[in-house]
Amino acid sequence: MVQLQLQKNDCYQDMKEAAILSNQELNNCEDKTQNMITIKGIIGLIMSQIDDDNQRAVISLGMGDPTAYSCFTTSHVAEEAVAHTLSSAKFNGYAPTQGLPQTRMAIADYLSHDLPYKLTMDDVFVTSGCTNAIDIALCILARPNANILVPRPGFPIYQLCATFRHIEIRQFNLVPTKGWEVDLDSVQALADENTVAIVVINPGNPCGNVYSYQHLLRIAEIAKKLGIVVIADEVYGHLAFGKNPFVPMGTFGSIAPVLTLGSLSKRWLVPGWRLGWLAVTDPTCIFKQPKVMERLKKFFDIYGGPPTFVQAAVPQILEKTDNVFFDKNINILKQTSESCFEGINKIPCLSCPQKPEGSMAVMVKLNLSILKDINDDIDFCFKLAKEESVVILPGVAVGMKDWLRITFAVEPASLEEAIRRINSFCHRHAYQPDRNI
Amino acid sequence: MVQLQLQKNDCYQDMKEAAILSNQELNNCEDKTQNMITIKGIIGLIMSQIDDDNQRAVISLGMGDPTAYSCFTTSHVAEEAVAHTLSSAKFNGYAPTQGLPQTRMAIADYLSHDLPYKLTMDDVFVTSGCTNAIDIALCILARPNANILVPRPGFPIYQLCATFRHIEIRQFNLVPTKGWEVDLDSVQALADENTVAIVVINPGNPCGNVYSYQHLLRIAEIAKKLGIVVIADEVYGHLAFGKNPFVPMGTFGSIAPVLTLGSLSKRWLVPGWRLGWLAVTDPTCIFKQPKVMERLKKFFDIYGGPPTFVQAAVPQILEKTDNVFFDKNINILKQTSESCFEGINKIPCLSCPQKPEGSMAVMVKLNLSILKDINDDIDFCFKLAKEESVVILPGVAVGMKDWLRITFAVEPASLEEAIRRINSFCHRHAYQPDRNI
Repeated sequence: MVQLQLQKNDCYQDMKEAAILSNQELNNCEDKTQNMITIKGIIGLIMSQIDDDNQRAVISLGMGDPTAYSCFTTSHVAEEAVAHTLSSAKFNGYAPTQGLPQTRMAIADYLSHDLPYKLTMDDVFVTSGCTNAIDIALCILARPNANILVPRPGFPIYQLCATFRHIEIRQFNLVPTKGWEVDLDSVQALADENTVAIVVINPGNPCGNVYSYQHLLRIAEIAKKLGIVVIADEVYGHLAFGKNPFVPMGTFGSIAPVLTLGSLSKRWLVPGWRLGWLAVTDPTCIFKQPKVMERLKKFFDIYGGPPTFVQAAVPQILEKTDNVFFDKNINILKQTSESCFEGINKIPCLSCPQKPEGSMAVMVKLNLSILKDINDDIDFCFKLAKEESVVILPGVAVGMKDWLRITFAVEPASLEEAIRRINSFCHRHAYQPDRNI
Repeated sequence: MVQLQLQKNDCYQDMKEAAILSNQELNNCEDKTQNMITIKGIIGLIMSQIDDDNQRAVISLGMGDPTAYSCFTTSHVAEEAVAHTLSSAKFNGYAPTQGLPQTRMAIADYLSHDLPYKLTMDDVFVTSGCTNAIDIALCILARPNANILVPRPGFPIYQLCATFRHIEIRQFNLVPTKGWEVDLDSVQALADENTVAIVVINPGNPCGNVYSYQHLLRIAEIAKKLGIVVIADEVYGHLAFGKNPFVPMGTFGSIAPVLTLGSLSKRWLVPGWRLGWLAVTDPTCIFKQPKVMERLKKFFDIYGGPPTFVQAAVPQILEKTDNVFFDKNINILKQTSESCFEGINKIPCLSCPQKPEGSMAVMVKLNLSILKDINDDIDFCFKLAKEESVVILPGVAVGMKDWLRITFAVEPASLEEAIRRINSFCHRHAYQPDRNI
């Protein structure tokens, strides 16, 4: 029967070979970038370690999605704004592919509030969340032999998008002992005439850092020296609760052209709404030339974009959300980040070099030398899931082997319980178990 | 000052050259495909011809977006389903990138209803509308030197996506005298060893045709002979109101593998909701091999996808929408398509070779020989907009010079008024004006 099937479909032999070929190309890409695995993919594998008949609740510190916890619900203003545009039945039709004019205008105003110049609606494009904005930014910068500089640790979607768009990835280091600042010397060493952009994620995912004005200025100056664009990933924009306030990279747009990426996802606690933006923050029009903007517009014609009624709610959401909502979330994140930092640093095999000051995650170093039967970060996370029903992302997923990424955007009680379980796990696997545990 | 600016930004000279270069590449692409202009782009240009101080209401027969008319409003079931998932606050977080399991399952069941086999949720991927599904279908089929066969007249997004994905477009003809059937001989003549797919749009946009079971079977057999995939664009699925019932191309999936593209947009009158799908309707797994499906899944990781709460509403929408709603819309479309067909055929310089039997648009032939001062279809549409405030798409935008595409998904009274104005325009521009007008 199988034989018959094969004969019957002989005409598809070429296609099968082509499919395998395409896949070999993909495999080659994967060889080039060890991080082709996505965070969702690896979290899925770790979750599969947990027995279904486990008695204890699973606690996930793996994904940057706080919406599972009741303390992180979006504002009534946002929900009502969308409910209103939906029920109006005025926004069931197509929007312009670059976004509704009123939405682009509202985002331009929102971003301009923190910039030394004013953006117009023509500078702003509405995207299906920040992932789509990343992909579009890379697409418009792609050219033969192009490379982009991305941080390590970083966000693996950059690697995945770059691989699909045939852009080479070059990783520069963030320095844990210097508040995860960019190693500016390594940036200059990595760049060449084919470098088109540097990616700056601030507030930082996965490190929880918030860069100072001075450090961002130095990055802009180096971008200028190299003649490259800055891709400023500000999906965690305004989620800063330490000594440094959030400074948008666009502040330095007249030094180096900046493509600012953002979304409602994190600040409004609605990652599933897929409402993001790409803003060309380039007041001196270094990058923003008519032909480039025309090309950017054409790109949007092949993307779906967010639903029109969600776009139509954006002006209300951006203008009317109360500071009380923002302050409440910042306070919870400040509290959970601190208890995470303190709790983790009390566990002998773990250390957190830098207290998180922004975003929703922090990097934790794993000291394998004091663990008797843990091979690496992946082994740690798999066994932790199996034994303690706690999910953590292995550092290798963000480019740092034998580190862990812990998301602290979790209900305080769950976070405390998770840290207790991690502590108990670490003691159980340590060479000299502490009998007090 | 300008000089100073240039000196100051000398470091960006390379970038400027690169940007211009990229644009030259884009221009070259444009030369290759005359249809790089999008429907929205050309409609925008035509709209700009209309004086703002015009006394008469603008009537657009240009876009396939009926939501501007109160007779085309979505069902309460659909609106309430989304309002419910939104207000539940359970769907503000991320969905899996391929879509929520319950959404994929519901779409699989919906499609399976009309197929001789059953799809599973693993066969279905949720997309940001049908445009995103088109782009993804082309992305996964792309390989060096690949070409795809697309209909003329057709839908220009295929050209645009293919150009961006470096796939060559080859156009086969639809035959107006044979109900816009595919010219199967020309398909075979165009195909070669680098052909990867044929695009079939049914019910047809822009022709308003609905293919018979027999014709679709013949297309599948030719696809099998050529060893290629069928991309079945069924965004107008079920919108058939003539002699042929709608037969999904997936019916013939065991002859040739079919990628079925669809969305809620047209049947539920919500094009702005951006909820589409790509289904692999390939029961004998000719195309659907594990590695291909794995690659397809990875692609979804770089797309935003529709909002989680909209996805979560899909099971209710697909299962609970009443036939009364569908029948009402079909009846209006049947009525407007008939009055459009009859009205147009009474105008001397216009002829409609085929009565529309599905979708929302029809192709109309322009007889320039009896018009004294109209150069071509673009000139016709620009002058019509300026003089009569009626917007029609020139055929060149869908690959047919000196034809017109008229959308009949318009309130009956507006359609009648539009046809009156077109009639008056045509008589005014004819060599021998009819004195009765």
